Amino acid sequence: MEAPSIPPQEYADRREAAAAGLQAARLDALCVFYPARVTWLTGFHVLPTERPVAAILTPAAEVSLVVPAVEKEHAEGVPGVAGVDVYFEYPGERHPMEWVKAALQRLGAAPQRVAADHDGYIEYWGYRGPRLTDLLGVRPVDGEPLIESLRRVKSRREIECIRFSADWAGRAHRRMQDAIQPGPTEMECYEPAAAESLRELLAEVPGWRPRRFGAGITCSFVGGRRTAMPHGFVRGQGLKAGDVLVSGAGVDVDGYSAELERTMFIGEPSPDQRRAFQAMVALQDRALEVMRPGLPIGEVELEVLALADRLGCAPHLRHHVGHSIGLEVHEAPFLDRGETDPLEPGMVFTVEPGIYLPALGGFRHSDTVVITTDGCRLLTSYPRDLESLVVPVA
Amino acid sequence: MEAPSIPPQEYADRREAAAAGLQAARLDALCVFYPARVTWLTGFHVLPTERPVAAILTPAAEVSLVVPAVEKEHAEGVPGVAGVDVYFEYPGERHPMEWVKAALQRLGAAPQRVAADHDGYIEYWGYRGPRLTDLLGVRPVDGEPLIESLRRVKSRREIECIRFSADWAGRAHRRMQDAIQPGPTEMECYEPAAAESLRELLAEVPGWRPRRFGAGITCSFVGGRRTAMPHGFVRGQGLKAGDVLVSGAGVDVDGYSAELERTMFIGEPSPDQRRAFQAMVALQDRALEVMRPGLPIGEVELEVLALADRLGCAPHLRHHVGHSIGLEVHEAPFLDRGETDPLEPGMVFTVEPGIYLPALGGFRHSDTVVITTDGCRLLTSYPRDLESLVVPVA
Repeated sequence: MEAPSIPPQEYADRREAAAAGLQAARLDALCVFYPARVTWLTGFHVLPTERPVAAILTPAAEVSLVVPAVEKEHAEGVPGVAGVDVYFEYPGERHPMEWVKAALQRLGAAPQRVAADHDGYIEYWGYRGPRLTDLLGVRPVDGEPLIESLRRVKSRREIECIRFSADWAGRAHRRMQDAIQPGPTEMECYEPAAAESLRELLAEVPGWRPRRFGAGITCSFVGGRRTAMPHGFVRGQGLKAGDVLVSGAGVDVDGYSAELERTMFIGEPSPDQRRAFQAMVALQDRALEVMRPGLPIGEVELEVLALADRLGCAPHLRHHVGHSIGLEVHEAPFLDRGETDPLEPGMVFTVEPGIYLPALGGFRHSDTVVITTDGCRLLTSYPRDLESLVVPVA
Repeated sequence: MEAPSIPPQEYADRREAAAAGLQAARLDALCVFYPARVTWLTGFHVLPTERPVAAILTPAAEVSLVVPAVEKEHAEGVPGVAGVDVYFEYPGERHPMEWVKAALQRLGAAPQRVAADHDGYIEYWGYRGPRLTDLLGVRPVDGEPLIESLRRVKSRREIECIRFSADWAGRAHRRMQDAIQPGPTEMECYEPAAAESLRELLAEVPGWRPRRFGAGITCSFVGGRRTAMPHGFVRGQGLKAGDVLVSGAGVDVDGYSAELERTMFIGEPSPDQRRAFQAMVALQDRALEVMRPGLPIGEVELEVLALADRLGCAPHLRHHVGHSIGLEVHEAPFLDRGETDPLEPGMVFTVEPGIYLPALGGFRHSDTVVITTDGCRLLTSYPRDLESLVVPVA
């Protein structure tokens, strides 16, 4: 089996599209600092650290990179990059942002015609540095929309990567579910399942490799009442009958991933847990039912909220319905009442309304869907019904 | 065995120290947006997402939090926090930064006497939002140094956490080294070792729990010539005799970690590899030899560089000598020529000069040290000599 990937031509096409925006706005250059946007524009999978990395795009769709010496060979190996400026290290004798300034000057960019996705490098770890405003003497034009407007709708290749990720996430999740039993801690159940899934993936898809740090495949879950905190942390206590579990599995495919999460039970759920689970599934069904091109994105949350009101579970919601997903595990736009733009074919979202009750636990499935020409299609494929998600207790 | 941790009183002491800085500068409030600084100030281990979180400190050392609904219960459970403002979600109908503005107004903070560690929430995932400047009508005072100046020297408790992390990182690394053999891929060697180390840690230290996402224990390595890229990615090819490996192991102890990295070989290294390895160890020895209180931090790199020049390996350096470590895996200050402040007792650094040769691979050990009253002391404890780091080939 072969893993899908984004070919160099697609990165070149993205640069053409972003450059068209530069031309239309009569700008001389676009500085891109946010790491995932650098990746989106160039195929350079940059690891965010305190060492600034910048991509500079011209209206002629040429892109150059400013990188630290640790990324020199990596950056120089990226197809289609016109040039790489290498500074030795951060903080160094001369601040790395000086290289960005020099690169802009070399291009002959007029300071008032420079756009940037952020006013300087984005603070990370021990980084501290000047704003681009301070270097240029003028605040850069807001260039974030030049790229973000293009990231919202995914290409055929991107959807293939996300679909492939969804398939393998499903396999890893199945293995994890099969390993769950009362007694051991969460981590003892899911770590071996992740390791075995990795072995399987390497054996069946020899060309696969992760783009992010780590093994590129994760599966994990949180158990017990602390699932009532949507971002609850694993506590390492042994699992026991009556626990509700909220799980997740993900696989990195050329930097892309799907999201698959499930609510499971150890042994039969109580009647209250059963009701909360069924309400959550009804909310997810409702979202999947209404998602179609042309619907204002915010309507999806409002439809779910209306049903939650009728079911009496609205006070137990703690977040909106979902987020876009692709190169990053959360991207804009969000399935949130604050979004007014319409859904478009090719947008990819997680659909994951959740109900959280301190006395019962958290209840959330997350599936990844793509908007089609007339509705939406699930990319993840894993049982959502209660019976399939009960871990039997001997 | 019990895991060390940071008690609530220490967080209160930190707030007192930061508030003293506010008082001295006659400021009304400090807004803290950078996630690790929020944690440092409050003990609230916030997971960075597109949902803004802010901590607001007063000159009376009272702290309040602005959090999304997903973090409500988590934030409300943090000892010593005076108040928690909860907005529902990002982006929402009203931007979350409006809650920050309202909290500042409630405190009666004069806009020109508000400090902030960053001019608004730090861009992450799909976040987009106004600068604090735009909300206040005036650029906030640079409040980053009010906290960063206090994070540089670690407390006794912090050093205990890092030391405990170093001990368990050593155990995990030993298990990983013992599992390495030609044939399988890197991931197949290190993932089971990580899972077994986790089981051991949970059994011996039942109270231990990770504060960050994931299992809280990692060990991994990259093999072959791609180690010549300091941040090389695992490629999933099978290991073979002659490969050089660069590894790392880490364990999260109440949010703190040490760094332990080693250069290893599968089978006997070539004479060139042996020379590169010995040069790297000599550079690390040199750094450990010179580090003492009062020495300008940048001198450590200059001393290493002088030796690298004599040894002829200066062209193969790709980064400075190390970084501070604590709540974040890279923190300021850095063992870098650009740092002019003196080393102080209680500072904790990684010491990790590296040599990178495309034809041979990468050569880097990383150890974590604390500056003492008269020198420095290793917190990590793992063999550094070549003979101990050769994986035998049958």
